[in-house]
Amino acid sequence: MKIAVDAMGGDHAPKEIIDGVYQALGQFEDIHILMYGQEDLVSPLLKSHERLTFIHTTEKIESEDEPVRAIRRKKDASMVRMAEAVKSGEAHACVSAGNTGALMAAGLFIVGRIDGIDRPALAPTLPTIDGQGFVMMDLGANSDAKPEHLVQFGIMGSIYATKVRGIESPRVGLLNIGTEETKGNELTKSAFALLKNAPVNFVGNVESRDLLLGVADVVVTDGFTGNMVLKTIEGTAASFFTMLKEVFTSSTKSKISALLVKDDLKALKNKMDYTEYGGAALFGLKAPVIKAHGSSNANAIMNAIRQARTMVEFDVCGTIHATIAEEGKHV
Amino acid sequence: MKIAVDAMGGDHAPKEIIDGVYQALGQFEDIHILMYGQEDLVSPLLKSHERLTFIHTTEKIESEDEPVRAIRRKKDASMVRMAEAVKSGEAHACVSAGNTGALMAAGLFIVGRIDGIDRPALAPTLPTIDGQGFVMMDLGANSDAKPEHLVQFGIMGSIYATKVRGIESPRVGLLNIGTEETKGNELTKSAFALLKNAPVNFVGNVESRDLLLGVADVVVTDGFTGNMVLKTIEGTAASFFTMLKEVFTSSTKSKISALLVKDDLKALKNKMDYTEYGGAALFGLKAPVIKAHGSSNANAIMNAIRQARTMVEFDVCGTIHATIAEEGKHV
Repeated sequence: MKIAVDAMGGDHAPKEIIDGVYQALGQFEDIHILMYGQEDLVSPLLKSHERLTFIHTTEKIESEDEPVRAIRRKKDASMVRMAEAVKSGEAHACVSAGNTGALMAAGLFIVGRIDGIDRPALAPTLPTIDGQGFVMMDLGANSDAKPEHLVQFGIMGSIYATKVRGIESPRVGLLNIGTEETKGNELTKSAFALLKNAPVNFVGNVESRDLLLGVADVVVTDGFTGNMVLKTIEGTAASFFTMLKEVFTSSTKSKISALLVKDDLKALKNKMDYTEYGGAALFGLKAPVIKAHGSSNANAIMNAIRQARTMVEFDVCGTIHATIAEEGKHV
Repeated sequence: MKIAVDAMGGDHAPKEIIDGVYQALGQFEDIHILMYGQEDLVSPLLKSHERLTFIHTTEKIESEDEPVRAIRRKKDASMVRMAEAVKSGEAHACVSAGNTGALMAAGLFIVGRIDGIDRPALAPTLPTIDGQGFVMMDLGANSDAKPEHLVQFGIMGSIYATKVRGIESPRVGLLNIGTEETKGNELTKSAFALLKNAPVNFVGNVESRDLLLGVADVVVTDGFTGNMVLKTIEGTAASFFTMLKEVFTSSTKSKISALLVKDDLKALKNKMDYTEYGGAALFGLKAPVIKAHGSSNANAIMNAIRQARTMVEFDVCGTIHATIAEEGKHV
């Protein structure tokens, strides 16, 4: 199986990307990596590996680039070349930690949408207290969504949860501001009605305060709300660790205390670190496109590559295609 | 100054409400409390106080009651009678920890809207790391909002922050999924354009992950998003304390560690406890209506009464009325 990787994307590129690639090559013997990047920056970090092909590219998409324009103009950008490898069939999936908007544009305009999918969705696996995690979509691919989009998100998320995470009948929840059917805004009220009749195990509305408790395996929402909630979880967790650090450095007594629980706290921080759960997958495209977090380290890149590999292995995109086509017949 | 209090609302009514009333009476010598509730439940807990008047009511609005219907049918409910005391001018403000929707309906249909205000907004003061806190609205009074509503929220929040919190030129931020002007959904993009020309110190988009860092003194958003973000902060913080508790009880070593930082952690928890910052105020009504958290203890009720008192003292509602009328002339 061939996986294309953008060596130039993310805050710690190319060093951490390359390290992550070698980690993945070590762990999975069935993958071959096609790595795209600038030779002068990448070469010094490369060790020869029989399942690694390096392709020199002259351009790079910056984090502040306007997504669609960047994809159209920078024809020789590592991200564009990576997506084209997927389009041509040279690679089965791709991974980038670069500009999220540009990667979504590359997914949409180069890799291409599955027939019948109106909107691709960005979906990371987020942490839960019990360590199981859940898939949430859309996390910002599209700010405004229609009720039908949320139904497609539920179908795509269910397939992913079943195929990749091995959950037999994944619980699909609609993110809302109350659990009662009548709660919410116009979008959620309409989506609730549609989800009740969709071919998923719909468990009703779920509230954002219960997300980390694992109330559902798949949580659907519009991109604006999803992005908002994700950033709120991130910000609250970060603020928390900042305050906790203050507590543990405020006195000699507390410093001793910190020494005693140091490892436990580190484990707690890792549990809340969603880069541990892999990258965010772009659903609704013809092949797996994985967005690794911008601040990805080697381990996060390895996890993102593993995720791409699993999605290819279990043919998630093919199953989505078949299911949506089947659904279309009933409309 | 007379403040009407609903003795029957909230999870710990009437005990904690009554205790909170006595705390407030002890702290503020210029207030007189009109307390509404069921005599058989309230009387056993009452001590005579010269600035406390108890009024017996026969009905109670339950947390599962449909708000508007409950307000219209239960004419002798403690919450309805409390709101009517404000309408008739008998009381200057009111406080309830009961059904949020019903209190908003009571505010809207009994106390009444300020002329020119399209939508009242629910606004709690939320915690920040530095202990200053910020006002956020709307937190769920209305799920769907128009751009103009967000501008009115900014104006009302600014007046509150100036008058009650003593901030000279409060920074008004628009809650969004990115800081750039072009980010967001249709609502936030339109609201951004309007806020730039509004009579407030608009500091642009603010992201939910930065809220606890204190990026703005007033944060405006639609009720759906606001409610979602609030519950996400609550849920993340609660999950955190659960996990922290697990860490501190997992071994003898960690139990010793816990003893050393016990007081510091309690202080941290209090800092994140927004009931410490008072209740949520309903803005846009002719008089202050304060919604105390459903799980309010006596201290939270005391804080909510203090907040009502301060709003009356600095004539927040009158100033909002005058400012909106002035704004109206320019349109």
